[in-house]
Amino acid sequence: MIGIAQIGCYIPATKKSNVDLLDKFATNEAFLRDKIGVLKRAQKQPHETASDLCVQAMEDLKQRIEIDLDTIECCVVVTQNPDVKIPHTAAIVHGALGLAETCASFDISLGCSGYVYALAIVSAFMQAQGMSKGLLFTADPYSDIIDPNDKNTALIFGDAATVTLLDEQANLCAVGFDLGSKGADYKKLICENNQLSMNGRAVFNFTAAKVPISVTNLLRKLNLDKTQIKQWYFHQGSKYIVDTITKRLGLDPALVVFDMYQYGNTVSSSIPLLLSQDLAKLQVGDKILLSGFGVGLSWASTVLEQF
Amino acid sequence: MIGIAQIGCYIPATKKSNVDLLDKFATNEAFLRDKIGVLKRAQKQPHETASDLCVQAMEDLKQRIEIDLDTIECCVVVTQNPDVKIPHTAAIVHGALGLAETCASFDISLGCSGYVYALAIVSAFMQAQGMSKGLLFTADPYSDIIDPNDKNTALIFGDAATVTLLDEQANLCAVGFDLGSKGADYKKLICENNQLSMNGRAVFNFTAAKVPISVTNLLRKLNLDKTQIKQWYFHQGSKYIVDTITKRLGLDPALVVFDMYQYGNTVSSSIPLLLSQDLAKLQVGDKILLSGFGVGLSWASTVLEQF
Repeated sequence: MIGIAQIGCYIPATKKSNVDLLDKFATNEAFLRDKIGVLKRAQKQPHETASDLCVQAMEDLKQRIEIDLDTIECCVVVTQNPDVKIPHTAAIVHGALGLAETCASFDISLGCSGYVYALAIVSAFMQAQGMSKGLLFTADPYSDIIDPNDKNTALIFGDAATVTLLDEQANLCAVGFDLGSKGADYKKLICENNQLSMNGRAVFNFTAAKVPISVTNLLRKLNLDKTQIKQWYFHQGSKYIVDTITKRLGLDPALVVFDMYQYGNTVSSSIPLLLSQDLAKLQVGDKILLSGFGVGLSWASTVLEQF
Repeated sequence: MIGIAQIGCYIPATKKSNVDLLDKFATNEAFLRDKIGVLKRAQKQPHETASDLCVQAMEDLKQRIEIDLDTIECCVVVTQNPDVKIPHTAAIVHGALGLAETCASFDISLGCSGYVYALAIVSAFMQAQGMSKGLLFTADPYSDIIDPNDKNTALIFGDAATVTLLDEQANLCAVGFDLGSKGADYKKLICENNQLSMNGRAVFNFTAAKVPISVTNLLRKLNLDKTQIKQWYFHQGSKYIVDTITKRLGLDPALVVFDMYQYGNTVSSSIPLLLSQDLAKLQVGDKILLSGFGVGLSWASTVLEQF
């Protein structure tokens, strides 16, 4: 069974302060702290591309675990802000890392639900192909597509990248998924002409309605009770949405991870960024729940178990 | 096991004549016929998007086979020319077709190797998730990114879309894959600033070298001899590349499908367009070989067997 062996992360050192924008957007620090949950946004350099961020995340992964790059059999990038239209960013990363020609490479286009979706897709692909080791990258640099005058988006998104080493020998494995789409509402979160536009209320309402149902369905399918989940990792869309999901599911807030104050909503990187901090703490038998939601609109939930 | 139940196709009715461009590009009809293999290029209307082409292909699929859309559990689009950057085109198709909210949707970013790669990815995903029916779309409208004055690309590419109904009850199944990437050469076929640029000689040399090896490796892995393959379906990159692969592998040209004269190189749609014409002829025990190659650079080969 394919599992998560380790996660490498990259958060750009440059941070943009939201506090400096309070007057511009006629808001206050309590709103930043309690509703949005973002005080600073991580921002890449303008010339940096998604593949550059992936390579940086790979540098971090190599600090955390020894990897023989020749043994990597697949290289997948989750992004909707690729370096170029053609080719896929995974090909550029493949070249930059000098991976083997036998290493399969492709991109998955998904947003905030992308990491969980990709765990399902890439694990299944590796299993079916008999692959032992693969790299799953997330990198969606929204700073390239944000209108700095749009209050709906300018205070929220930060840049980051992660890379997850998937390994058939690893012991943190997904035991089930709940995946969904509501394509009819795709215009609520859209990037046309390289500019992001979000109907914040519509996306919030969608999430507040769908995610608790997705989580409940998944737990029922797995015959699990909420009390059997050691820790909860929701996509860090905003403080308010994570709080709302926590309340609607009746969870103990102490068990719900929240950490985006210093870098913002990093799209598909938000969940693996959090998870990377906790991998070493997990013990055999521990179960944790991950749920991503957003662009599509779409959602994806999974339970990981430490075997 | 997940198999191919049926394939729906859409080739836009508007055809652009390459013969009209002979003077412009100082070439002749023999070159068009024997080297490029394209006399006319199918071209979508300027306002049509990748999702529009997918919906048209779906109309054709519905003429070929009865489908209850509520039973579709995944919707995947292979494209590098999505409608918009965000969301994925699969979400827009999901909305346009009114698919169920439990239907998982995502895009795979790959070019001419995309159909074969996606058969591996989506079949594995469906199998792992216990899904019975899925839709795999290909749609890469290059007419949006072609410079009409660039001889390297302006005579070659055509627009089209396909949709493959994948079904656990279907009897045409992949029995093995050979997948690869050469990311170091990604710049040989690239779209920057919405304009395609191709180093034709480099892509040709790559293909002529890699595809015969990929096919040979796959047959060896499956313990198959060339004579056991009933028909060969190579990506229709050009007449010259298909002829070259045929020669290098020592194949009987009568068993190698070629058909792009009237619509051009349709990227990830080329193989399913050909396959759709032959599905009804396949008999139990027949084995056919598919191989796609290009953008990435990358390649993907598979053997399908009719069970």
